Amino acid sequence: MPIPSRSELDLLVADIIAASQFNAADSLHMQRAIALAEKGRFTTAPNPNVGCVIVKAGKVIGDGFHLRAGEPHAEIHALNAAGAQTHGATCYVTLEPCSHYGRTPPCAAALVKANVNEVVIAMVDPNPKVAGKGIAILVAAGIKVRIGLLAAQAHALNPGFILRMQKQRPFVRLKMAASLDGRTALKNGESKWITGSAARSDVQVYRAQASAILSTASTVIMDDASLNVRYSELGASQRDYPALYNESNSQLNSLSDRETLQKQVRQPIRVVLDNHCRLDAHVESSSSALKLFSLPGEIILVNGAKESIDGKGEQRSADALRDNESVSRIEIKQDRHHNIDLNQLMSALAQQDINELWVEAGATLAGALLENKLVDEIIIYLAPKLMGDSARGLAVLSELTEMAQVPKFSFTDITQVGDDLRITAKPEY
Amino acid sequence: MPIPSRSELDLLVADIIAASQFNAADSLHMQRAIALAEKGRFTTAPNPNVGCVIVKAGKVIGDGFHLRAGEPHAEIHALNAAGAQTHGATCYVTLEPCSHYGRTPPCAAALVKANVNEVVIAMVDPNPKVAGKGIAILVAAGIKVRIGLLAAQAHALNPGFILRMQKQRPFVRLKMAASLDGRTALKNGESKWITGSAARSDVQVYRAQASAILSTASTVIMDDASLNVRYSELGASQRDYPALYNESNSQLNSLSDRETLQKQVRQPIRVVLDNHCRLDAHVESSSSALKLFSLPGEIILVNGAKESIDGKGEQRSADALRDNESVSRIEIKQDRHHNIDLNQLMSALAQQDINELWVEAGATLAGALLENKLVDEIIIYLAPKLMGDSARGLAVLSELTEMAQVPKFSFTDITQVGDDLRITAKPEY
Repeated sequence: MPIPSRSELDLLVADIIAASQFNAADSLHMQRAIALAEKGRFTTAPNPNVGCVIVKAGKVIGDGFHLRAGEPHAEIHALNAAGAQTHGATCYVTLEPCSHYGRTPPCAAALVKANVNEVVIAMVDPNPKVAGKGIAILVAAGIKVRIGLLAAQAHALNPGFILRMQKQRPFVRLKMAASLDGRTALKNGESKWITGSAARSDVQVYRAQASAILSTASTVIMDDASLNVRYSELGASQRDYPALYNESNSQLNSLSDRETLQKQVRQPIRVVLDNHCRLDAHVESSSSALKLFSLPGEIILVNGAKESIDGKGEQRSADALRDNESVSRIEIKQDRHHNIDLNQLMSALAQQDINELWVEAGATLAGALLENKLVDEIIIYLAPKLMGDSARGLAVLSELTEMAQVPKFSFTDITQVGDDLRITAKPEY
Repeated sequence: MPIPSRSELDLLVADIIAASQFNAADSLHMQRAIALAEKGRFTTAPNPNVGCVIVKAGKVIGDGFHLRAGEPHAEIHALNAAGAQTHGATCYVTLEPCSHYGRTPPCAAALVKANVNEVVIAMVDPNPKVAGKGIAILVAAGIKVRIGLLAAQAHALNPGFILRMQKQRPFVRLKMAASLDGRTALKNGESKWITGSAARSDVQVYRAQASAILSTASTVIMDDASLNVRYSELGASQRDYPALYNESNSQLNSLSDRETLQKQVRQPIRVVLDNHCRLDAHVESSSSALKLFSLPGEIILVNGAKESIDGKGEQRSADALRDNESVSRIEIKQDRHHNIDLNQLMSALAQQDINELWVEAGATLAGALLENKLVDEIIIYLAPKLMGDSARGLAVLSELTEMAQVPKFSFTDITQVGDDLRITAKPEY
């Protein structure tokens, strides 16, 4: 088969989307595939979450999901589960099957080999260099293809992966916690605890889902922030989450042991902005008192590069300098205010394969990310308290003189978490 | 019948409550009575909202609610609607029938005269001097009485009336509007508009329900606040509210004309704290530019009494000085910080028959009310915006040094209103 051009691929995909129709049974199967994909949310990064369901004569004959990079993709698990019955079956998959030989053979080829009759795809591969190639392989083999079923839900499985593929930056979730009057600490710095234990457990779930956690040397030094995922503090439903694997899918029987599961909790990379190398003394000291360095997990220290390296910031930053087994270092050029250039930082983190970035820092970084329009979602935990005007604020922003200049958001979710409120909102840039 | 003593009445009521049992049909009838009572919420003050349903052989034969002081009570409307069929009926009423000759004859006597078989009462009269007297009249006449059905809902109909009867102060709702980071205005004072039009309409409903609106001379002068109820800004569902009367109850046919309804919107008394008589010039000037004085409705100016009048604050304040047709004046002693003593103020407002007080003011009065534990409910409209640390805060509180000292609340309702969020919370004093 000749390799189709980008424009041929785009035309092929557009034609299929326009012609695709779906019924209620299709939706149910794709919902099942999406639910399966979600099971990988603590482990798949930097790969996307993908789920797959294979149906024959209205009956599910195999399903699966992607668990971890280097391990089989969702389609392969599902095909293996279906065994010899795949001839003439319909495959529902939340993301376009891959077309390339990576650590695993291409799924599109496996589906062709399995002789399935049809493949229903929720969304096309977000990588503009790849999109459509897996579909072309299927079509060339005479397999029917439909595209676009539950596309929005499929998109929501992988906001970070998609943004990294399309815009070379991670999906940034800014976490804030404050009283009802937007205060994060008393005037003297006291802030333990504004929110309750349920909200703090909830934060652990977001941390566990993230590829990386971003904070600053100030926060690390002032709060002795560990920024890690504490299995014991994950809410009960989340702690049991991996155990659900066994009920729904045989691929994970080997993970049935709780202690094994606990060890498998991925520690997100901890990225700490340290413009002025304030943490260096702690890195070098084997007896650092900071929790950050005493707990297992990868750490990236981001130092400011004094000299502006026009256009080279990204390249330079990709050459991470490794201080020791767990601590590496990148240099990012400073902006005109002599702060770390946040746009350059995001490019560098995308190059480090970081899909979803969870930000826990102070009012200064929060404000700077917002002013650089680098926040994709804010998560604010509001405690039912009032701390008063003398207490510390949530976000340092340039002084505004007109209401029209104020950063605006739209609420996407409001949930009570214990005694507190979790507000999720998207910026309207 | 000999007049029972207080202790005899308390014993009678306690015995009846202990013996009362209710079935599903009872609940349905009482729910109907409560829904009827709510129809009076814009008009009954200083009287309570009361609804009544009369049932015979499982069928509703009459119902009614109290609309306005001086007009018939709920029971009388229901008895009139039932006509000659009341013999042997069961009467459901949200509040103990009255026992005294006021502007209308006692409802307890009317129920006796109507020969009803049984009276089911949601809650006892909250006035400790009256509680049980109506019940005693019914019991003495041989009418069966049950008490306590949906008592919490019945209580929620009249938080202000109940508090005024029991603690001689109004129920205080503190309204605040802020960005997600708790800011009420930009540094330069600009604040129009933080919240959207739906939230502002919602505020109109709360104003319309209140007996009085409390604000300060600062707010009136700075914002030219009118503090009145604008019929045109009431949400559509609320504007239509009075029209519903006709569908459910014949007592209000005379109110069918919308223009009449509009005129009947009660303007709450506007109470303005003016410690240093800054508004005097405006009161005396017939050409005041302030909206407050140019719009119809009663105004009470609260001036600080320089001399502390030990224990006489309440009495003095009851002697309202009337400047002109719509403006009266009370003097309240100052506290040790030379501010108006807010506890004395609340006593004085209760003496003016104010049940529910809606507070719209700045961060200073908000903080002072909170620190005096005089807030019964806070309503915060949060706009999906961030205004930054240089913007103005929500509440001026004394500087705190420990999180344990921070005023705490519990959320009772979270509702999205247009683009904004309305948070209702109760203080945990």
